[in-house]
Amino acid sequence: MTQAELVAEIVGRARAASERLAELRTDVKDAALRQAADALEDACASLLRENARDLEAGRKRGLAAPLLDRLALSPERISAMAAGLREVAALPDPVGEVTRMWNRPNGLQVGRMRIPLGVILVIYESRPNVTADVAALCLKSGNAAILRGGSEAIHSNRAIAGVLRTALARAGVPEDAVSLVQETSRELVDALLLRDDAIDLVIPRGGEGLIRSVAEKSRIPVIKHYKGVCHVYLDEFAEPKMASDIAVNSKVQRVSVCNAAETLLVHTALAERVLPDVLGALAAHGVELRACARTRAHFPRALPATDADYATEWLAKVMSVRMVDSMDQAIEHIRRFGSSHTETIVTQDVQRAREFLRRVNSSSVFVNASTRFSDGFQLGLGAEVGVSTTKMHWYGPMGLEGLTTQKFIAFGEGTIVE
Amino acid sequence: MTQAELVAEIVGRARAASERLAELRTDVKDAALRQAADALEDACASLLRENARDLEAGRKRGLAAPLLDRLALSPERISAMAAGLREVAALPDPVGEVTRMWNRPNGLQVGRMRIPLGVILVIYESRPNVTADVAALCLKSGNAAILRGGSEAIHSNRAIAGVLRTALARAGVPEDAVSLVQETSRELVDALLLRDDAIDLVIPRGGEGLIRSVAEKSRIPVIKHYKGVCHVYLDEFAEPKMASDIAVNSKVQRVSVCNAAETLLVHTALAERVLPDVLGALAAHGVELRACARTRAHFPRALPATDADYATEWLAKVMSVRMVDSMDQAIEHIRRFGSSHTETIVTQDVQRAREFLRRVNSSSVFVNASTRFSDGFQLGLGAEVGVSTTKMHWYGPMGLEGLTTQKFIAFGEGTIVE
Repeated sequence: MTQAELVAEIVGRARAASERLAELRTDVKDAALRQAADALEDACASLLRENARDLEAGRKRGLAAPLLDRLALSPERISAMAAGLREVAALPDPVGEVTRMWNRPNGLQVGRMRIPLGVILVIYESRPNVTADVAALCLKSGNAAILRGGSEAIHSNRAIAGVLRTALARAGVPEDAVSLVQETSRELVDALLLRDDAIDLVIPRGGEGLIRSVAEKSRIPVIKHYKGVCHVYLDEFAEPKMASDIAVNSKVQRVSVCNAAETLLVHTALAERVLPDVLGALAAHGVELRACARTRAHFPRALPATDADYATEWLAKVMSVRMVDSMDQAIEHIRRFGSSHTETIVTQDVQRAREFLRRVNSSSVFVNASTRFSDGFQLGLGAEVGVSTTKMHWYGPMGLEGLTTQKFIAFGEGTIVE
Repeated sequence: MTQAELVAEIVGRARAASERLAELRTDVKDAALRQAADALEDACASLLRENARDLEAGRKRGLAAPLLDRLALSPERISAMAAGLREVAALPDPVGEVTRMWNRPNGLQVGRMRIPLGVILVIYESRPNVTADVAALCLKSGNAAILRGGSEAIHSNRAIAGVLRTALARAGVPEDAVSLVQETSRELVDALLLRDDAIDLVIPRGGEGLIRSVAEKSRIPVIKHYKGVCHVYLDEFAEPKMASDIAVNSKVQRVSVCNAAETLLVHTALAERVLPDVLGALAAHGVELRACARTRAHFPRALPATDADYATEWLAKVMSVRMVDSMDQAIEHIRRFGSSHTETIVTQDVQRAREFLRRVNSSSVFVNASTRFSDGFQLGLGAEVGVSTTKMHWYGPMGLEGLTTQKFIAFGEGTIVE
């Protein structure tokens, strides 16, 4: 098969499956997800065997230990994947939901109804559990998923996708609801990215390099965020203990994720009373602090910060710190150095809370809560397929609802335009 | 100024204006729109003078009469533009609307709040009233508009944009909320289309050629529809008079628009009783009919139809007709030949109505109503900036709400991730 034929085959099958998926009843989709979950657990031994091949190849290629860890499956991780499928089965079905309905003066009743997007291409790296997670979210939202995992996980991904497809077919769901691109060449992905006639959305999951490359080549809309430079702003009216708790939790609860805080902005009014305690607590958790001169006057242990530091997504136990004279200055800093991901204000003053919420247009803006809540599970979406910091289609953590769009519907009684 | 400098200047000013616009109070925006409406009416004489220059140049270049008509301003058309601005001022402000709010088990209160998209580039042809319409919708939704009209309307567009900018500045709104690209070269547009770092959305309004060219060159998300091949399906259980009324209204009420019907699908059960009357009524309105052989057996006056006819957006008093054995066959036809724009079913049967609504995923799907309702004004959106048949961000007629996105907001009480 030539590459053009292969691409035509992949998108043709996915497209055909997407038409049937859009019409599937909720109970059929949910039963299929539960059966797929059972099938993954039943296939544990063979999944581990295929995964061992990837791990072996990875070791030979000299993959770093953290990458090997992300790649590795275990009985626990397989059970977690299965549990993920069952959780998605338990979520409400967004398809067919009528979100609003209103009447026109001429008697026409107008509404908007959720429908699937169609065919979704997901490009991801290493972690094989993404294969199951994304397949489940796409299926539940009535979309066909074309999955293109990394070559380092190809045996694991093939095994997982194979189990899922067999289980779906047994449950009366088209197996092409989930298709794994078997050939992991770049050329094939590039060719898929030009098929905006057949693929509705691309979601790249991985490092900034992968995401930029997809965004530049794609003619299909891309859901993306490049990085998460998240801010905690301790306002003049912050409650001291809460300030410390939220700064510490936002920074250290898990440092390697996009919703971990990277910069602490502190109102000058807190310089004497609160600042040293908060920075002391961070330092006690092993956080290296890089601070402006005014901050260092009150906390000399901090290293000096540069503008480049303020633009850095540390993803490590490092935090930039800056003192600001006002909330205006904090917002200005966020606009200049932020990445539209997540910001939080700590304050007891309702006016400041309201203004911060209204004026900061990052995809998640919180009051008195950790930045770590910017996550599909934590916000109550059930799961997430990614986070978007592009202000289109979806903005913020994206779950089932983000995988749908809305059509207009209307009921008349022979209603015509005069 | 080099072209690169010019592009940087245009997007830099629009970006700065968009930050201020996002924070403007509703009453300030509404007062500015009303003052701009007054200013357009006050400037009637000078607008007509500038418009005369475009008309003169158009005649010299040999523009066709319909194009000259679209280009022409008159005191009535200027008043209509002003009325449009006042109508937008009277619409509810989408910015800051909290669309949902829910509680998490840990006490976190989560919601979604509407915010502007940012900077919107609109590329359009001939009709100068688009300048005022689009500026008003963008301003009300808190977005900065970069307008690039056609060279044939440059004097009219300059005059209108000039009046608007002066009025906005007087009302305390940044004048760069509305900027007109003065230089109408293709190279400049192409350069703007690469600035996905500074422009959030592109809306091309014009012929299919313009739209395709923008979609191919743009790195910025594009709101578009290529064409409107809209269908009227007369079901087995259609009420005969309603069938005729809706077929006629959908086709002839205004033939040159994208939501006019192009194809009539008729259930075989109607072949004897209803079909000849409906086609007779269409023919009496001067509609040329192109029909399948089975239809022609009952209505010999119709010409034979080809597959190419079924894919054609006539935009004229021509209609394709096809007899179908079932609703399944009607839906199949729509999927094969349709353009995801608007389809309507005429039926008295609730099960058929429900199934058609659920299964047809065009951007507007109606029951017992004319396809001509697929329009922002008619559906109650107040106005529209365009129609999207791309299943992303927005699908269908797009008004103020479509010019916004939603951020996540959350209120905690020192809430941290455990």
